[in-house]
Amino acid sequence: MYDLIIVGGGPGGVAAGIYAARKQLHTLLITESFGGQSEVSADIQNWIGTRSISGIDFAQNLEAHLRAQESITIITGEKVYRVSQSEDKVFLVSTENGVTYRGRTIIVAAGARRRKLGVPGEEEFNGRGVAYCSTCDAPFFKGKEVAVVGGGNAGLEAALDLVPYATKIYLLEYGEKLKGDPITQEKVTRAQNVQVIFHAESKQIYGDKDKKFVGGIEYRDTQKDEIKRLAVGGVFIEIGAVPNSEMVKDLVQLNKFGEIILDHRTSATSREGIWAAGDATDEAYKQNNISAGDGVKAALSAYMYLQKLKTNES
Amino acid sequence: MYDLIIVGGGPGGVAAGIYAARKQLHTLLITESFGGQSEVSADIQNWIGTRSISGIDFAQNLEAHLRAQESITIITGEKVYRVSQSEDKVFLVSTENGVTYRGRTIIVAAGARRRKLGVPGEEEFNGRGVAYCSTCDAPFFKGKEVAVVGGGNAGLEAALDLVPYATKIYLLEYGEKLKGDPITQEKVTRAQNVQVIFHAESKQIYGDKDKKFVGGIEYRDTQKDEIKRLAVGGVFIEIGAVPNSEMVKDLVQLNKFGEIILDHRTSATSREGIWAAGDATDEAYKQNNISAGDGVKAALSAYMYLQKLKTNES
Repeated sequence: MYDLIIVGGGPGGVAAGIYAARKQLHTLLITESFGGQSEVSADIQNWIGTRSISGIDFAQNLEAHLRAQESITIITGEKVYRVSQSEDKVFLVSTENGVTYRGRTIIVAAGARRRKLGVPGEEEFNGRGVAYCSTCDAPFFKGKEVAVVGGGNAGLEAALDLVPYATKIYLLEYGEKLKGDPITQEKVTRAQNVQVIFHAESKQIYGDKDKKFVGGIEYRDTQKDEIKRLAVGGVFIEIGAVPNSEMVKDLVQLNKFGEIILDHRTSATSREGIWAAGDATDEAYKQNNISAGDGVKAALSAYMYLQKLKTNES
Repeated sequence: MYDLIIVGGGPGGVAAGIYAARKQLHTLLITESFGGQSEVSADIQNWIGTRSISGIDFAQNLEAHLRAQESITIITGEKVYRVSQSEDKVFLVSTENGVTYRGRTIIVAAGARRRKLGVPGEEEFNGRGVAYCSTCDAPFFKGKEVAVVGGGNAGLEAALDLVPYATKIYLLEYGEKLKGDPITQEKVTRAQNVQVIFHAESKQIYGDKDKKFVGGIEYRDTQKDEIKRLAVGGVFIEIGAVPNSEMVKDLVQLNKFGEIILDHRTSATSREGIWAAGDATDEAYKQNNISAGDGVKAALSAYMYLQKLKTNES
């Protein structure tokens, strides 16, 4: 029986693990890998205090910091699929390997996965011109023409993030109108270097395979039923993210996006004994430093809760 | 006229500055120095992703990361004493040097100052056995006898943080009873290595001046009017912190501790156009990673607000 089981090895989970270990909680951390979604970033320039770091090095730093702690058990390469609660209030954490772990408290820091386009070239050029985070990567596309796929708020904001950097931004929307906030739509419409293309069904992302970098995107104009190509040096895919919250959907309140609803001062969820951190939650902005802060809050809240439990039990 | 004026150069202010600059806001950051309260730490072991870093290096990393950004103006060595708002809603930021800066939005990340005991030896041994953050520094006192000054929640929690590490903890309280939560009091009372001393008025902290480390604390037993000495290897001063919120006290809502009340999802204060981050706020836990997360939220919220303002103006 663990005091605390943490699910996730991104900045939120690792922050929680380090703080829990320093509070000498008997802690288990389960993760598929370290670094979260930033693991694949070519160059992270907004992890505060570090001017530039690759996603791989970022992940290694998180893992090394966590492993330097005593009193924490770490299981990697394993995926949690369900958290349930027994009648005596103990939480049961089940992994796809068929193992179940028992814990008094839980921190869910399982992140989110980007919704993929699912077209040829998307995986191949991921991190080589194909990008999923305009706040992170817009400055790298200075002086280039780029495409943004997605006409919702995320796509519109990505286009606006790119306005000061890219020479030209093609915004591809599958439907016949933009779906984001009117104000944001208006800004995009006014921006001189943004061109919105409706009825655009993305078909593939192509590139110079020797240079291993994006050369353009091919789409079908669904109105004219014509295949068209845009020669661009970058493709931002902004069709949403999927929070990894399925494991606790029967235990905690989720919002309509499937995000775990948090008390943002304490990282508490609606279920006593479960806290959450990072991109699986309803944080307004999905950023590494916010996830780390959430993880710290979650661990310190769990610590105080466990202290209280132990006092009541004894 | 700046888009944004940030007050403070700790992790909250620097995080806000980096994100604001990346959003190409015309930003001014004013701070006395960099690094916040951690500037004086001998060894920070809980800044996520970094196993160990001195306060000085931490401060330098923050400053270097901020200075690597284009489109930010940085003023150091200057103290802001008041923020006011003109009739046309522009914020006026006045410094002790008699200069006033104008900004459309404000982020207050001015931190807090520890309440000092004000006794001889306190400054001299600061960072050399005199400590103000048990969450940060408890593990360094493994195997030592220590004193904690303060019988409120902060002092009780400091004592509990030390229980697994220190061989003996003397908890000095000026009054005749403890003032913290009953549950926490009970835990302290039960801990076998904690001894509470009432009616203790701290008089001085002494040490081996060659080794430059704490050797003990001298106090007056106010009941018996006797001077007593405790030979300890560390003194934790836990008599509270004072948030640096005076500059905005007429503009934003503060709680009874003088902390700026935040919407913790967006870092918004009660005043439109002002956001806040870190230890000047009502964050439940005062930790560097939480401040950095707050700063990111504040900058992204200010960015969205400014985008909206500009759309409405044009």
